[in-house]
Amino acid sequence: MSKVGIVAYGTTPFTKDDHKIETILHKSTNDLFQKNPNIDKKEIDAVLVSTNNNSKYLSPILSEMAGIQPKIAHSIESLCNSGTNSIVSAFSYISSGLADMVLVSGAERYDSPGQILEWDNSRGEFKHPIFWASIFSKSYKQEYGISDEELAIVSVKNHKQAKENPNALSKKTYTVDEVMNSKKLTDDLRLLNCSRPCTGSASILLASEEIIKKYTDSPIWITGIGQKTTSAGFTKNISLSSMESTKIAGISKIDVAEVHDAFSVCEPMILESLGFTNPGEGMDMIKKLNETNNFMINPRGGLIGSGHPLGATGISQTIEIVQQLQKTAENRQTDNPKTGLVHNMSAAATSSTVLVLEK
Amino acid sequence: MSKVGIVAYGTTPFTKDDHKIETILHKSTNDLFQKNPNIDKKEIDAVLVSTNNNSKYLSPILSEMAGIQPKIAHSIESLCNSGTNSIVSAFSYISSGLADMVLVSGAERYDSPGQILEWDNSRGEFKHPIFWASIFSKSYKQEYGISDEELAIVSVKNHKQAKENPNALSKKTYTVDEVMNSKKLTDDLRLLNCSRPCTGSASILLASEEIIKKYTDSPIWITGIGQKTTSAGFTKNISLSSMESTKIAGISKIDVAEVHDAFSVCEPMILESLGFTNPGEGMDMIKKLNETNNFMINPRGGLIGSGHPLGATGISQTIEIVQQLQKTAENRQTDNPKTGLVHNMSAAATSSTVLVLEK
Repeated sequence: MSKVGIVAYGTTPFTKDDHKIETILHKSTNDLFQKNPNIDKKEIDAVLVSTNNNSKYLSPILSEMAGIQPKIAHSIESLCNSGTNSIVSAFSYISSGLADMVLVSGAERYDSPGQILEWDNSRGEFKHPIFWASIFSKSYKQEYGISDEELAIVSVKNHKQAKENPNALSKKTYTVDEVMNSKKLTDDLRLLNCSRPCTGSASILLASEEIIKKYTDSPIWITGIGQKTTSAGFTKNISLSSMESTKIAGISKIDVAEVHDAFSVCEPMILESLGFTNPGEGMDMIKKLNETNNFMINPRGGLIGSGHPLGATGISQTIEIVQQLQKTAENRQTDNPKTGLVHNMSAAATSSTVLVLEK
Repeated sequence: MSKVGIVAYGTTPFTKDDHKIETILHKSTNDLFQKNPNIDKKEIDAVLVSTNNNSKYLSPILSEMAGIQPKIAHSIESLCNSGTNSIVSAFSYISSGLADMVLVSGAERYDSPGQILEWDNSRGEFKHPIFWASIFSKSYKQEYGISDEELAIVSVKNHKQAKENPNALSKKTYTVDEVMNSKKLTDDLRLLNCSRPCTGSASILLASEEIIKKYTDSPIWITGIGQKTTSAGFTKNISLSSMESTKIAGISKIDVAEVHDAFSVCEPMILESLGFTNPGEGMDMIKKLNETNNFMINPRGGLIGSGHPLGATGISQTIEIVQQLQKTAENRQTDNPKTGLVHNMSAAATSSTVLVLEK
């Protein structure tokens, strides 16, 4: 079984731009090839597109736009963790020997149809994700005696970190008071507690050990994969204060991590479920990181600061960890990380993917 | 690298029924488990959904409906060959060791959005597949001196074979005259030269060699995979009388084959491109098979006779070859086949997948 690593990456800024999905996809792919002009496109055996967009046949379309004639070409969708699902699929194509090099491109428009949960009747009228996030917030606050002001710190920290990310949607920093006074969406959620939909794209190129050494002397390897789907319907989640699918996939001892802070409450819940802290102590860790300007968790600004273009998010998270491990993260660089983690999830944590990356 | 085989399958009749996509998907999955009550759902590591339907998160939804909690769960789309793309992805998950057993379920509604080619501006106003099929027909007839009456034999043969397939959309047989007098759609195509959209679902369960022997003493192995994407836009196909993507993936010496007869002209073109016959001689082979009631090509009735529920088609084709090799194809059974082939393609053969199956 061949080792699988990351050869190259490309991205777009995350914006509110109104472009066609094909154009958005092609932009990050183009950025990847412009940064790495030595890559031989003939060696790319598969092109996987990660998106919730309703357009069909996007992988052959992107391939044609980018001048690639792959063997394998298809789209992958699993709502908000489409990106890491695509990376895991690319891993399997390479690891099985069906492909030596795989391009994974994720893209979304600000008006993605993946943002409304049409399929879960147990949600009743509450189809927008803010309703599950609101229930999670209420439950988590009650169970561990956490205040709204404390949860606001997640947003403060991640907006601060996003300010150092030139591709982030948010360009501003906020105080706890500003988060607390932002528009009230539900009893338990203010606007600044929420990640925002946006337009954006991110691409990475994965390859086998044999190929990768031709192209880079600082490859980043995917050394761990954890994935679990517990259900699709929200009401099948038994605990509303932890994340079962994340727990099953959990791994600790990590220097830097991108975790899926779709809403403020998700960040402490994920840190606890992954085993970074004990249950109920996630906010203590986040407060300490914020006070010491330690960018260890969500250095790129998370979903709250960077924006959340669904199909691109998991890929953008992975690129951030690659940059951290290669020490090219500029103002976001954490202290000499050796091992990084990506946590990407869908639909109230009914499914989660965890990747471990190492130099 | 583990061998990958097929443990079980399930299907629905292909109809014009108006059901929700979740219901359609679940029906063939349910059929699979009812036929194989000994299968331990806890051993299913991945659930892949093949569809062009716009609904999101269908794999976790199907998993919940079927009582499966997989690690890996996502949808795969590549228009008309979504089904075989999903089978190849399942192969790679198993072969890489990321999964031991994978459920692949394909489904489509009669009104699938994959039927209109929105994305190819080179088609101008001619977005419906009948326009490329019409151009292929005109070119093929001119190049090899083939008549409309000869091409009609493909439809006659495949409707005749579909009559022996209890799940086929078509229940009727037709004469060459009836095909020639069916509704004229373009200069070169009559209604009965075309596969018809329909509602249907097909599921197969793939597993590693270690697992498969627990469940069946007559496994069918996937022993060959060929895949190629040449372009997405129709005008990038240089030859209009052969199929470049099919040719590249081609394999001969096969006892029984399901090939992608989206339109009458496709069947001789595919037989030639795969290497079953020389260029221009595909109709000679088809005429001979028809005269001798030899079901070797498209025993289930092909897309023309069975109907074409896009995301289910490649899986349904694969199930037919499994039944042929297991000698359970009843009135459609061919003479002691040892090796079978599935050919599934998209969008004017801009991409093709070929699978070889053996006992």
